[in-house]
Amino acid sequence: MRGPRPADLTLYLVTDTHLAGARGVPDVVRAAVAGGVSAVQVRDKDASRRELLALVRAVQDAVAGTGVPVLVDDAVDVALLAGADGVHLGQDDLPVQEVRALLGPDKLLGLSVSTPGQARAACALPPGTVDHLGAGPVWSTATKPDAAAPLGLDGLREVVAASALPVVAIGGIGAADAEAVRATGVAGICVVSAVCAAPDPAAAARALLPTSPAGPSAPGGTP
Amino acid sequence: MRGPRPADLTLYLVTDTHLAGARGVPDVVRAAVAGGVSAVQVRDKDASRRELLALVRAVQDAVAGTGVPVLVDDAVDVALLAGADGVHLGQDDLPVQEVRALLGPDKLLGLSVSTPGQARAACALPPGTVDHLGAGPVWSTATKPDAAAPLGLDGLREVVAASALPVVAIGGIGAADAEAVRATGVAGICVVSAVCAAPDPAAAARALLPTSPAGPSAPGGTP
Repeated sequence: MRGPRPADLTLYLVTDTHLAGARGVPDVVRAAVAGGVSAVQVRDKDASRRELLALVRAVQDAVAGTGVPVLVDDAVDVALLAGADGVHLGQDDLPVQEVRALLGPDKLLGLSVSTPGQARAACALPPGTVDHLGAGPVWSTATKPDAAAPLGLDGLREVVAASALPVVAIGGIGAADAEAVRATGVAGICVVSAVCAAPDPAAAARALLPTSPAGPSAPGGTP
Repeated sequence: MRGPRPADLTLYLVTDTHLAGARGVPDVVRAAVAGGVSAVQVRDKDASRRELLALVRAVQDAVAGTGVPVLVDDAVDVALLAGADGVHLGQDDLPVQEVRALLGPDKLLGLSVSTPGQARAACALPPGTVDHLGAGPVWSTATKPDAAAPLGLDGLREVVAASALPVVAIGGIGAADAEAVRATGVAGICVVSAVCAAPDPAAAARALLPTSPAGPSAPGGTP
């Protein structure tokens, strides 16, 4: 097996600098990881690359020793300079096969999809190109104004069915519906506001963990 | 000597997608190189990284066989994926020493400076970190609204005097003042509007070339 792959995507936190507010992203991440977050993506579309590099390094310091991987949204150069564990790309970011070639085989590479067709296309790439898919938005959300139409649980199930790769669900997921989302067969759930905007990010993360330690419940299980 | 360095910076074109308009950046670059442009930097702050990568490749195709180097503004990942000849960084972009380490020794690395102090700081970096400085703006300009206060010719002379590296002057330079700017001792002049907005980019480039083929005239020469 190569490098840190596969990652534990059970509870995947995407950072939001504005929502973290005065506490700062690294402190929110530290608390969230203490609460059970298993992977972190640093995302800040408003930061310069220089600011983003500093932010990624601060998050790496915050999770040091926990084994939690840190991925960087979009900015491949920043990920390389920081020695991050991986990159997350959108459909309109740099082409995944070329980014994989630049990153080498050991880095995590996640790709956003919003339809079953995009999931199939990602799974049809050469093995080892993409590690996991971020499917969404499940619900409409204010933290990603350019997002596609919401999938809902049925749409999410269709993406999961179309994908041979692990799928994490993203978009408006909170503690109240985390189990219902997990029951679609996803490898994990991805959250932004539910943790970054929470007064107690550790408690918020804990409330989003699977109720069964064995992972997502099987389709048709207790809702 | 390493790779394509040192570059001929006599007439250095920075692209502007909006000014190039319907003709498209690659056609403007092709004409400008035919007119005497000796180096090209692809700059498009509004493009996504994916769009920028496509643009860089189109510009590389446009100059193929001419020996004119193509640099990329800011986007180190795009430069790496495109196999560009180099990168140009601003003071707020990714740190130059780290970018140099990522690029390896053979790529061109230019850095923007707007004061003699910034020029001295760049020249104090380990040899081979920065290849050349872009000093400006000489005059105020609409194509870079976030630029520092204009240097004028006297300020430009101070930057040149402070720099052990080749300096290219940028910012509002046109055919009427190109010789006066060259007389400050710069290695070349850098233009955006004067070529990208010109009805005939080849003729516009020709009009910006040094009048003496020996290069910039000595200070005190014929104005």
